[in-house]
Order: sequence, then structure tokens, then C-alpha cells
Amino acid sequence: MRIDIRQTADFLLNNDGFLLLCHVSPDGDTVGSAAALARGLISIGKKVRIICGDKFTKEYDFMFEGLEMSDFEPEHIVAVDVAVPKLLGEEYCALYGDRVELCIDHHSTNDLYARKVCLEPDSASAAEVVYLILRQMNIKITPIIASCLYTGVSTDTGCFRFSNTTVRTFQIAAELAAAGADYYNINQAFFETKTKTYAALERLALEGMKFFFDDRCAVITVTRRMYEKTGSDETETAKLSNLPRQIEGVKVGVMMRELKDGGFKCSIRTHGDIDASNIAGRLSGGGHAGAAACTINADKEQATSMLLDSIRIELDADEI
Amino acid sequence: MRIDIRQTADFLLNNDGFLLLCHVSPDGDTVGSAAALARGLISIGKKVRIICGDKFTKEYDFMFEGLEMSDFEPEHIVAVDVAVPKLLGEEYCALYGDRVELCIDHHSTNDLYARKVCLEPDSASAAEVVYLILRQMNIKITPIIASCLYTGVSTDTGCFRFSNTTVRTFQIAAELAAAGADYYNINQAFFETKTKTYAALERLALEGMKFFFDDRCAVITVTRRMYEKTGSDETETAKLSNLPRQIEGVKVGVMMRELKDGGFKCSIRTHGDIDASNIAGRLSGGGHAGAAACTINADKEQATSMLLDSIRIELDADEI
Repeated sequence: MRIDIRQTADFLLNNDGFLLLCHVSPDGDTVGSAAALARGLISIGKKVRIICGDKFTKEYDFMFEGLEMSDFEPEHIVAVDVAVPKLLGEEYCALYGDRVELCIDHHSTNDLYARKVCLEPDSASAAEVVYLILRQMNIKITPIIASCLYTGVSTDTGCFRFSNTTVRTFQIAAELAAAGADYYNINQAFFETKTKTYAALERLALEGMKFFFDDRCAVITVTRRMYEKTGSDETETAKLSNLPRQIEGVKVGVMMRELKDGGFKCSIRTHGDIDASNIAGRLSGGGHAGAAACTINADKEQATSMLLDSIRIELDADEI
Repeated sequence: MRIDIRQTADFLLNNDGFLLLCHVSPDGDTVGSAAALARGLISIGKKVRIICGDKFTKEYDFMFEGLEMSDFEPEHIVAVDVAVPKLLGEEYCALYGDRVELCIDHHSTNDLYARKVCLEPDSASAAEVVYLILRQMNIKITPIIASCLYTGVSTDTGCFRFSNTTVRTFQIAAELAAAGADYYNINQAFFETKTKTYAALERLALEGMKFFFDDRCAVITVTRRMYEKTGSDETETAKLSNLPRQIEGVKVGVMMRELKDGGFKCSIRTHGDIDASNIAGRLSGGGHAGAAACTINADKEQATSMLLDSIRIELDADEI
């Protein structure tokens, strides 16, 4: 059942004992939204705990400083920024996948697996939705809550550069900044800082960038061997996925990342009318119009070929 | 004489025949501010013309579409985003340098050369100041005016990432977006697009990045040979200068760019308490605390050595 912001606020106000679930490969939006919601609920005396199928990386540490999450038997399972149960990860999907009572999300691909779904597909981030819910609940947006939400807003919009950015995104960013969000340090950490290992990986990946379809498509491939050579690993690949699309004239940019057990995870970023979720969808993946992903269980050559076949269909359709 | 927003609005409302001057090496802020001001003044029937000592590059073309600037004998000279008369360029500095009646600016280094100075040093961009003036004049912020101003706001803050970004910057960005600023395409053009020649140059430059002083300093060097190899040229080097500082742990990032007639232009970017203008100052250059530049007439080895000597002094001072 779809519910709106007010109904979601009422549900949270009238209940207690929330287990908040983030999606695996956690990003700034799922972690920031969950941390902000947890802090808001705790501030009005609720019991809350956050779990995730993957470990949170250290850049999110600040969100949990001084946050006391109680040990209790969860009464209500709430998923945040999780479009489909599979994204809870194997263990938590098996445990909670069919027991999610409330899902707060912004993915148009959300399959409505939860009993109650607060879904705003026009929202650039789940953090925007959580902000509206907290406001509806009359919960004070403290500086740390504002920082958690700003992290979600900024990371899911590539610092206001992606096509999902709306007037409301800017308005909420302004309100969060006014509420004390530490936007400068957050922007520095997420957008203006590269580890030396990431910088080396980026260089290697860009050296191997290949162009297709009259340079309208650019593909970079990250292999396991590159991790060995640079000391980097898959946790550092997220930023790489945006780079091919930056090249002038490129409408479809792809990062193919070799998986531990073989096969490739493909992150697809598009410009204009090219729908990335169509490209990923034909390969059993999904996502948004401008950003989508899929996994191809094949060797590099075959995976590239399958991916290019799907991209060709979208590029051809764009020309009609 | 310093004047405030209201006095500036009154001056513009009560006069006519404005010649707007931009600074040389025009950037998004000087051009966007001047174009927005011109459009606003023309919309209430004033005669306005914009001039600049350098040609505007093609990314600013959209600001002038359909803008009819009349031919008239200027009555009032207005400089926008011009901190000192020298920045008008040789010709216009000689012609107008001592005749500027109004200067609208945000540089704390403004030397108050104009008869009336509307200076807001806490403003991240001149565009923010122009926005406030237009609002004070009750001039309608049309979508194209909003786009011109948004270009100034976003380019002067590195898309909200630089330390000059304030709560008001976000608020004004939200208001400009609501007024119809084409923020998506502006962000794409200025922040998310690399020419293939630039991308190749960036790759080459990063390959040669060198670290000094326990990796607290990173230096990239762009040689004439690299332009030949990549088809790029010096107009594409501006973005490169920010890259060395992005590496985690780097406090001083430098781009050394080989000049046509020998020697090196050094762009210095710093973090934290390291003052870039001190580093440049010892080599007869100057700038702001976080960004400065100098020219060294020496071969690569000697220039690097001179630069590192100056950097060492700042890094040593930082450790005390």
C-alpha cells in the first residue's frame, strides 16, 4: 500500500522499536537517510537500530558519533532507500525480505515489496523524503541530522549536477545548510578528496577507456589485476562510474567492474533522452533514467559485447 | 565611497546609458553578472552595453542570445567583478580605469578605485550581489537572467564546493532554480564535460604527478610537448590546477605549466592553514589564501626547486 508523508509520520509517531535496514554497497543516501531518521526518532524517545548487509565505510563514521542505538527485539522493520528486497543482501533478505513493514524510498523501480511504501520517485534522494517526514513529525533538525541528510542529498545528485536535481533539492539543501549541516567538509570528503590508491586506479582505468558508436559511448573496465597493482579495491570504484560520461559527446558512459567470483558489474550513466534503466533492464538490472546497473556473468569480451548490444538499441532508438 | 544594495539600486534606477565592464580572462561570474545586470536594466528601458578586454568564449554564448545592446555614448561606467583597474586589460584600463563610477564586486582585495563601490566580500560571487540589486529594483528575474546569475554563483563556488559557499549561496541558488535557471545544462557544461583533448592532457599530467615533503605536496607539470601529443592547449589547463590538492593528505597542490617563451606558470592550491599567497608571494606572485599563482623564469628543474623551497617554508611554519 502506498502511503504519503503524513501517513508515514503518523506511523512512526504511533509506534516504537524500529529496525532500519540499509541497502548493500551502502552509499551516502541510504546511510545518511537511516542515520537521520534514527537520530530523529531517538530524539523523541523511540528505540531504533540500524543494520546493513555490508559494513559502513569510514567516511560515514561521523553520522554515528554519539548515537546510542539500543538493543531490543524489533517490532517494526523499516527499509530506507531499498528498491527491492534483494538489495538487503543475502542474509537480511532471507531474514527480513518479506517482513518489511515500511519502506521509505525514491526509486521508481521500487517493487512495492513492503506493506507500507512511502515512495517519492521525483525526489532526487531518499534523504529528501526523510527530511519531509521529520518535518511533518515536528522533529528538530539538529546540525548532525542536517549533515546526515545533506550527505544523502549531495551524494545522490553528484553535488547537484545530476539530472534528478530539482528546485526542491536546492531548497532542501538551503534549509539543511541553515540548520547547520557541515556542507563544506561533506563536499570536500565526498567530492574533492581522492585516496592515493583511488587516484592510481582512476589513472589505470582511464588509460584503458574505449569508445564505441561514433564516440557516443565510452567504457572503462576495472579488473582485479588493477586492484593488485594500485592497492585499491571495489569500495573505491563508485566515483569512477561517472567519468566516461563526462567526455564531450558521450551519451552513454559505462564502468565495468570485474567481480571476485567472475563476471562484471556494469554501472551505466547516460545523458539526455537515453534511458540507462532500459539498457540495464535488458540485462536483468535496473535503476533510474540517468543511472542504472546490471551484473553480467560472462568473461570480459562477452560481457562487453552483451552490454554494447543493449546500448546500441537505446542509441538507435534515440536517433529515430 | 562604499554604497549598499539599496543605494546601488537607486543609482541604477535614476540613471541611464550604462557601459558594463568585465574583467579580462572572463569567467562565469564576471560575464554572468554583467549579462544579468544588462538584461535587467534593458527590461526597464535602460540603454546598456557590455565590453571586455578579452573575447568571451563560446560557453557564454547563451547569455547573449536575443540580447540587443544599443549603440550610445556611455554616461556611466560600471565595473562588475573587477577588483582592480588593471584587470580591465591594458586598453580598457587606460580608457576607463580612472573613470569607473560604480563597481559591483565581492573581492576583499578590491582597491576601491571606483567612485561608488557596492562591495560584499562575504558574497561567494558577484552574481549574488547583482541578484540582490535586481531584487531591490523590483526587476523580474526571468529564466535567462536566472541562468546568467546561476552561472556566476555555481562557477565561483566550484558548484558549491569551495569554502566561500554560504547558506545564502544555497538560498539564492534555490531561488534562481525556482525562477527557471537552466541549472542542469549549466552544471553539465561547466563541471561535467571534458573535451577529449582535455581528458588526454589530464591523463598525461596525472601520470607524471610527483609527491614531496612526506606526500604533503603534489606537483603536476604540463609541458608544451604534452599539448602537441594531445591536441590540447593552455586554455584547457584551468581545471587541472585543482587536481593535485584533491589527493588525500596533500596540503599544497601545484600545477606547473610550461610557457611558450620558456619558464613556468605555477598555480598553487592549498588546504587548511597553508597560505598559497605566501608561497606565490616569495616568487613575485600573489592571490588568495587557498589559491595563488606565480611565474618562474627558469628551466623545469630549477623552477621546481625554487617552488619547493618556498613551499617548504610554509609547511615548516604549519608544523610549529
